[in-house]
Amino acid sequence: MSTELSRFDHVRAVRFDDPVLLLLDQRRLPAEQVDLRCTNVAEVAQAITDLVVRGAPAIGITAAYGAAMAAQQRSGSGADFFSAWDADLSMLAAARPTAVNLAWAIDRVRRACAGLSVEDVVRVARQTADDIAREDLAANYAMAEMGAKLIAPSSGVLTHCNTGSLATGGLGTALGVVRAGVAAGSIDRVFAAETRPWLQGARLTLWELMQDGIAVDLVADGGGAWLMSQGKVQWVIVGADRVCANGDVANKIGTLAHACAARQFGAKFMVVAPWSTVDMDTASGDLIEIEQRDAAELLAYGESRAAPANASAYNPVFDVTPAELVDVLVTERGLIHAPDAAKIALLAG
Amino acid sequence: MSTELSRFDHVRAVRFDDPVLLLLDQRRLPAEQVDLRCTNVAEVAQAITDLVVRGAPAIGITAAYGAAMAAQQRSGSGADFFSAWDADLSMLAAARPTAVNLAWAIDRVRRACAGLSVEDVVRVARQTADDIAREDLAANYAMAEMGAKLIAPSSGVLTHCNTGSLATGGLGTALGVVRAGVAAGSIDRVFAAETRPWLQGARLTLWELMQDGIAVDLVADGGGAWLMSQGKVQWVIVGADRVCANGDVANKIGTLAHACAARQFGAKFMVVAPWSTVDMDTASGDLIEIEQRDAAELLAYGESRAAPANASAYNPVFDVTPAELVDVLVTERGLIHAPDAAKIALLAG
Repeated sequence: MSTELSRFDHVRAVRFDDPVLLLLDQRRLPAEQVDLRCTNVAEVAQAITDLVVRGAPAIGITAAYGAAMAAQQRSGSGADFFSAWDADLSMLAAARPTAVNLAWAIDRVRRACAGLSVEDVVRVARQTADDIAREDLAANYAMAEMGAKLIAPSSGVLTHCNTGSLATGGLGTALGVVRAGVAAGSIDRVFAAETRPWLQGARLTLWELMQDGIAVDLVADGGGAWLMSQGKVQWVIVGADRVCANGDVANKIGTLAHACAARQFGAKFMVVAPWSTVDMDTASGDLIEIEQRDAAELLAYGESRAAPANASAYNPVFDVTPAELVDVLVTERGLIHAPDAAKIALLAG
Repeated sequence: MSTELSRFDHVRAVRFDDPVLLLLDQRRLPAEQVDLRCTNVAEVAQAITDLVVRGAPAIGITAAYGAAMAAQQRSGSGADFFSAWDADLSMLAAARPTAVNLAWAIDRVRRACAGLSVEDVVRVARQTADDIAREDLAANYAMAEMGAKLIAPSSGVLTHCNTGSLATGGLGTALGVVRAGVAAGSIDRVFAAETRPWLQGARLTLWELMQDGIAVDLVADGGGAWLMSQGKVQWVIVGADRVCANGDVANKIGTLAHACAARQFGAKFMVVAPWSTVDMDTASGDLIEIEQRDAAELLAYGESRAAPANASAYNPVFDVTPAELVDVLVTERGLIHAPDAAKIALLAG
């Protein structure tokens, strides 16, 4: 783990303080820094649904600790343990529909515990949650170093949503590469798109980078294309909620627009995602269920209502960028230029 | 003027109620419908700067009435009339940097009044302002009919910012085409991008269309590309703050991103602008001064602050879409497919 890089990595979104799961409440950032204390699995699932914690890897880590917590709490329930715990896992898995890491983390805990005694399930579930968190952090450091090597000196970068320490086990995926590029001196200027409707860029990415003294300019989501046309951005660097077996990428709404502009103006488009985000069971992006959220999120801005009363909105919160618009996919297993099904299958092994 | 179409055209942004200029205060829509009463030219210029009125054609009409009002008020100042009025016109012209209609309207009043007596200046300035308003409305009806004829049945459209009655002398430019397409039954679904940072789409376009019973869905600015990739939008229809002699189009930030996505996914991109917006003296988009506004506009909305204290933002409020991404330019003089310098010069005559 690079010492230089760890100087840019102070925030942790998810902390298990046995028997309580502490989630830095991202709905309240940047105004307030408050932990939500989850003491049972229903609270953990609700926190995921309510966006207290967001970002695919952080959701996975949270769910794994929720599963471990549930095992501990169910361990006195005798013969009902396995059915009760199974229902807990199903509830966690249903908390958000799009992030593959959620299902992946639950499955990993379930597999690790298969055939074990109740006592061993409690121990192994906790150990698996710790492993998921630790491996995610290590993957981010590896991806950051790999991705940053691609960035030429004096580059400007644009990132979308929040893919940093708040969204992961630490450092971040796309934001990890941004941090590593800043640490290496190759990135001169960082732009963060505000990321409507939930404003993860304005609220979270700015806050995170400012904690570490990294200069960043907020831009309107629609402004990315203009930055690229003016030569101010050489790399668009984003995370992923799901990478399909063919390299199609589901990510926060607005990602696809940046990808189209990058192709038009010759900027490069980098997707940074841990291997847990790669879903080999989903052949292509058209098979992904895109989460639609409440119109109200779009009709207002924080406490300020923008749209007229009774207005309608269409609020898909993810989009799918086709693999042909992705210049490079960075995972902890290695990076793939111009990703496609064959190259991803090779890395899948 | 189409009776059918005029059923969709109730709002007026600028009304001269001699000697007062009434501006529907667009900063307060949609929550409140309040007129700002301007009683002198300084108030008119300030209203333009402060975005009480916005939209290139509406700004031009407002400035023309401001010039007429100034002539009336200066008419008792004797020998100083011409220098004082000239200073008034310069103040008006400086109220916003990007909109070509502002300079165009002032110049038209100035030319119409050149060499006249003070008494005649007062009369002709007022007459010219009335002409500008009336001609703009007529141009919008003509453009609406022309543009709508291009739209095949069962089309979805996406528009950006507000280009409707609030932005013009009435009906609107791009929104006039949308209204005509709805009236003709060819447009099935209308999406309005919210248009950060000032949210003209969410606040104004929704309000306008809802006044006329036209169904519209708000979408995030970054969501346009996703709509196009999903086949939900066949036409992106936007206005312009300035069209260059080569067909490059300056318009609200975010327009260029939609244009890139339209090209990527095969949607068509239509620019609707009165001839007064065409600036034959600006050869291409790289010569346009792009207005940068206060970072605070992007860091918050209304009472809701999103970004951390002391955060930075880069807030260019226009972008330039190169002519090669424009499928059709609609003006009241006719429409141009794949506009370029030669075709525009022909229409300029």
